[in-house]
Amino acid sequence: MKLYSYFRSSASYRVRIALNLKNLPYEYVPVHLVREGGEQLKPAYRQVNPEAIVPSFVDDEHHTIHQSLAIIEYLEETQPEPPLLPKSALDRAYVRSLALQIACEIHPVNNLRVLKYLKHTVGVDDATKDAWYRHWIESGFETLEQRLAQDPRTGKLSFGDTPTVADLCLVPQVYNANRFKIDTTRYPTIQRINDYALTLDAFARAEPGVQPDSE
Amino acid sequence: MKLYSYFRSSASYRVRIALNLKNLPYEYVPVHLVREGGEQLKPAYRQVNPEAIVPSFVDDEHHTIHQSLAIIEYLEETQPEPPLLPKSALDRAYVRSLALQIACEIHPVNNLRVLKYLKHTVGVDDATKDAWYRHWIESGFETLEQRLAQDPRTGKLSFGDTPTVADLCLVPQVYNANRFKIDTTRYPTIQRINDYALTLDAFARAEPGVQPDSE
Repeated sequence: MKLYSYFRSSASYRVRIALNLKNLPYEYVPVHLVREGGEQLKPAYRQVNPEAIVPSFVDDEHHTIHQSLAIIEYLEETQPEPPLLPKSALDRAYVRSLALQIACEIHPVNNLRVLKYLKHTVGVDDATKDAWYRHWIESGFETLEQRLAQDPRTGKLSFGDTPTVADLCLVPQVYNANRFKIDTTRYPTIQRINDYALTLDAFARAEPGVQPDSE
Repeated sequence: MKLYSYFRSSASYRVRIALNLKNLPYEYVPVHLVREGGEQLKPAYRQVNPEAIVPSFVDDEHHTIHQSLAIIEYLEETQPEPPLLPKSALDRAYVRSLALQIACEIHPVNNLRVLKYLKHTVGVDDATKDAWYRHWIESGFETLEQRLAQDPRTGKLSFGDTPTVADLCLVPQVYNANRFKIDTTRYPTIQRINDYALTLDAFARAEPGVQPDSE
């Protein structure tokens, strides 16, 4: 198995946690998203993934898989232990909806290429760009906190006490929030889940700071 | 079953197609996203869905399901016929990755609340906002077209000749592109798939123009 990854990419970070939880060894192929305008935009990487984003995952060499959540569902189907989704359909839907709230509502709006467009094409200054970044994390975390704080299924982690795909999305998003110095004490359930998750080996080994391409 | 929907919401549109394909009757509960600043932001709807977005789906009255793709995966698990995902894990990953490319890379950046923030908080003019909208559809469709045009699994639809979750995301996104007068002839495979899908009854009955709250 091979993972095209960038240490700071939160979508890559999600898949690294999944691979670690399922005890799957993999080759780490770094793709530097910033150096020389971004290696993901060069023809060599576009041949791997025409979307020009990370992660890309290779299990069968003829079929590179795009999109972190598609990769994680693939791992769940082909390497079911330990499961990253609960058993009942309603609970699975709930966990997926938490993951998708982060993956579809918070993360994409703060994607590197969106921030670049905002700065270079729309022409906003750095203060406006930073406010934009914080706004989408803060408004997203506010409702995520409300959901997690109210739902009786919340445990040490987003769903009970064992990791699910919701935690795989939550922890990298908290990492981004911390990078931008967002006050996460306003989201105590999110912070508690994040802090507990990072005591687990599979999460700790997936952290950006310990990747081969970390700076 | 109950679906909180807005006729023009592409995430709602995805779920409407899924429900129609699976022949599931449902109660349509309209939530007007624009009138009076948006019904989704009022306390009554926030009680249904604190994310304050549509769609929300109710099967079990104690558990409202958020997020269109979580709803569709739930339907796939509880009402498996006809399937909206292929059989093999690699093919399922491919179809999910097409759906997620639209749901995570194109659609969220053009979400109503992002456009509102861009206009009212960043303070851009309408021309800049429209260029933003078009940019994310055009750059997203360019790589989606490339993937669909090159992959031998593309048929009359995104994967073979029967509808999958990829088509459920593609058709509503083309609807948005048409609303903004984007020249979709530049994406012949996408256009061909869209045109064929709309000849199918389940897609036609899900179109915004024939919903109870259509204007």
